[in-house]
Amino acid sequence: MADSWVNAAERIGVDLHLELTGPGGRRAALIRALREAVRGGRLAPGTRLPPYRSLAADLGVARNTVADAYAELVAEGWLTARQGSGTRVAERAEPLRPPARVPKRAPLREMAPPRARGPRHDLRQGTPDVSAFPRTAWLASYRRALQQAPNEVFGPGDPAGRRELREALTEYLARARGVRTAPDRIVICSGFAHALRLLFGGGVLRGPLAVEAYGLGFHREVLAAAGVRTVPLPLDEHGARVDRLGRERAALLTPAHQFPTGGPLHPGRRAALIDWAGTRDGLVLEDDYDGEFRYDRKPVGAVQGLDPERVIHVGSVSKSLSPALRLGWMVLPERYVGAVLAAKGEREAWASVLEQLSLADFIVSGAYDRHVRRMRQRYRGRRDRLVAALAVHAPHIEVSGVAAGLHAVLRLPPGTEASALKAAAWQGIALDGLAAFRHPETDLPADDGLVVGYATPSEHAYGPALEALCGALPPP
Amino acid sequence: MADSWVNAAERIGVDLHLELTGPGGRRAALIRALREAVRGGRLAPGTRLPPYRSLAADLGVARNTVADAYAELVAEGWLTARQGSGTRVAERAEPLRPPARVPKRAPLREMAPPRARGPRHDLRQGTPDVSAFPRTAWLASYRRALQQAPNEVFGPGDPAGRRELREALTEYLARARGVRTAPDRIVICSGFAHALRLLFGGGVLRGPLAVEAYGLGFHREVLAAAGVRTVPLPLDEHGARVDRLGRERAALLTPAHQFPTGGPLHPGRRAALIDWAGTRDGLVLEDDYDGEFRYDRKPVGAVQGLDPERVIHVGSVSKSLSPALRLGWMVLPERYVGAVLAAKGEREAWASVLEQLSLADFIVSGAYDRHVRRMRQRYRGRRDRLVAALAVHAPHIEVSGVAAGLHAVLRLPPGTEASALKAAAWQGIALDGLAAFRHPETDLPADDGLVVGYATPSEHAYGPALEALCGALPPP
Repeated sequence: MADSWVNAAERIGVDLHLELTGPGGRRAALIRALREAVRGGRLAPGTRLPPYRSLAADLGVARNTVADAYAELVAEGWLTARQGSGTRVAERAEPLRPPARVPKRAPLREMAPPRARGPRHDLRQGTPDVSAFPRTAWLASYRRALQQAPNEVFGPGDPAGRRELREALTEYLARARGVRTAPDRIVICSGFAHALRLLFGGGVLRGPLAVEAYGLGFHREVLAAAGVRTVPLPLDEHGARVDRLGRERAALLTPAHQFPTGGPLHPGRRAALIDWAGTRDGLVLEDDYDGEFRYDRKPVGAVQGLDPERVIHVGSVSKSLSPALRLGWMVLPERYVGAVLAAKGEREAWASVLEQLSLADFIVSGAYDRHVRRMRQRYRGRRDRLVAALAVHAPHIEVSGVAAGLHAVLRLPPGTEASALKAAAWQGIALDGLAAFRHPETDLPADDGLVVGYATPSEHAYGPALEALCGALPPP
Repeated sequence: MADSWVNAAERIGVDLHLELTGPGGRRAALIRALREAVRGGRLAPGTRLPPYRSLAADLGVARNTVADAYAELVAEGWLTARQGSGTRVAERAEPLRPPARVPKRAPLREMAPPRARGPRHDLRQGTPDVSAFPRTAWLASYRRALQQAPNEVFGPGDPAGRRELREALTEYLARARGVRTAPDRIVICSGFAHALRLLFGGGVLRGPLAVEAYGLGFHREVLAAAGVRTVPLPLDEHGARVDRLGRERAALLTPAHQFPTGGPLHPGRRAALIDWAGTRDGLVLEDDYDGEFRYDRKPVGAVQGLDPERVIHVGSVSKSLSPALRLGWMVLPERYVGAVLAAKGEREAWASVLEQLSLADFIVSGAYDRHVRRMRQRYRGRRDRLVAALAVHAPHIEVSGVAAGLHAVLRLPPGTEASALKAAAWQGIALDGLAAFRHPETDLPADDGLVVGYATPSEHAYGPALEALCGALPPP
């Protein structure tokens, strides 16, 4: 016992270089560092972690910081806490397939197996229902693409992406999202973050960039890493306050479904946004992350359709199909096409060319439309169940942002978000609070709320997750 | 009339890589190839096709085979045949599938359509024979991977890459390249340039970085964009002069097959390199770009095997399989794993997770080994034909770097490289001179030479390319 603690302490303190750096304060940094140590196998399953006070002293942080970090990782499933046995690294799940052959040479000290185990109830936003990936239809498209591909497909790729895909997207985006473009104005990328890296890291656009006061912290991190200052735009019930746009060169918005608060940008605001771009030579960066999923109202077309020369429209299959494909697109004003291609380089260096062709086939054959329709029904059902459950079990909680998308926001009384998150973690529920998305520089008063990703659980896991959520909400 | 025939012949013979492969005999293969050329737009509407006998001679098939193929494609509507006007590409060849719906709104002005026309003879280095991609075996692996994948595969990816692939690579690299590692020290990426961007752009490593005096300019550009100063190391007949390593923090080398001059790093130099890294706390960045392809001598193991804690070993499938997959790997010293993962971000943002699984299956099933063996034979045959042709037609030209890889260097008398390149271009040959790879700051005297990529042409195009090359070389 003493031994295992000493070993663990040595590894944690020294061998693992547990470094508390990065955004979000020391608690967030400690969580990241520990999570990586477990995931990467550097903390082996079953290893007992040092008591709060020891690790706190080692790292020079408050004891509560360590306690919070442990609790979070227990909630996420990386650690287990048992009365009398302390906190330990969770036992490993079986590997998916045994390695086919064992290396003959003596292996290096294996850093240890990874843990793929998540929280008991995963209600984090950002992921579609992974159990619903259309394996058969996708495989059929991949087969056709591979069989019909001319040989040059297997050589260096066009940095714009395969023309077949850009043609398919031109038609699809016009029909489904009201995007007005042409194949030669589309550039394929690996997703929205990659688009940001290419646009700002590649010198195509410069800051300062206006962003919504609530948004994805990861995007702000990517922008900060590219040296771009972001300026928060306040939000109200009509969406981003575009009247506050000033001397920024560009504005990054989620007009169809504000992320994460959930409303569409008001028609008047859409017009004002395009006016701003026209009169100030500004650019709108439209993050159309879940534009396909609308439930109660008419589809909200892309802002791009209002002025194709002033809007860069970015989308991907990460919500509609799977983030595993790493396929997205930038729809560009003509004047940016050359610079974006230059930023990508002479050859395609990221996106799989074969899966580009497969996606083109998937769209043209109608399989994409069928899949989106099916998922829209499924997610609408989930949304309805969430709203119904709340009406019964927590009628005092207001739910918003439910007309579209894969997540909802449960509004909480001021000052209760942190404790609600703790209560949820205690129930084994992983989800985020609104504070995690708040721009650090906004002067908007902080809203308390929980962001519930209702697409993430599989069908059979959704009921229990809802039940646990209702049980974890603050009483009236 | 004469013009259109010449253009068509040029395009058909070379640019289109008209490859007679696949099932069903040469007639079926020719039909497929021509149909694809028309469908893909590489043969423009109205283009006159060459007479039967000319194309038959070019391709080494019977005249009747060509006549039959033309007749079939006329029947299918791809071509038209009119008395006195020859066979032409139909004016508006119907696409295979009509687009599902045509957008109602007026389309934007379409930018100029891209042209995919290449040189008549492509001997540029850097690309494998694209006609040899193992479509059937790859599809089988993709199918198995997709069918066996657990649901979580379709969620956010581990930035380290799929463990199945890292396990397969651990075993394969140990066996084939003498790399000593473990799955948790491997991080998947999109290729070598992506690895450079992550390592230097992501703040894992800093310059100045020693590089070989001759190397890929594109890599120097990526490094420069990340703010990294590169310091050229002289080369001699034993490879990089590692004794000249000074206060650089890291050295980027191609030890197995110096790129582009072609020799392996001398064993004494390998030892000296590792000594330098050990005594100066230096790091070796090993670019193992074509380590699989060895012809005359025993495989040269990876330098990484000498000291896994001092070498980052980077490889990819771009030469062995195809650059279209955008899959590569970094084998890391333990102390860099955390930083590289942090640079990648919390989720996989680039490499397709499904194709990672497919590659794992491809390796574990033995298909990768079979493909590499087959390609090694093919490329060795090409290498032998190059050497034999030079011995007959240009015995005064020394050829070097032919013991391995996919390219050779033809040494030229001082001051003749530029004119030799011009002569080659005049013959429709695309290839690079050594000067294109020379570090701008090296004080090494400039060597004159041509870098001949013998893997690039398809099998039937290789003979004519060799012939043209021999005709373009400077006389004794």
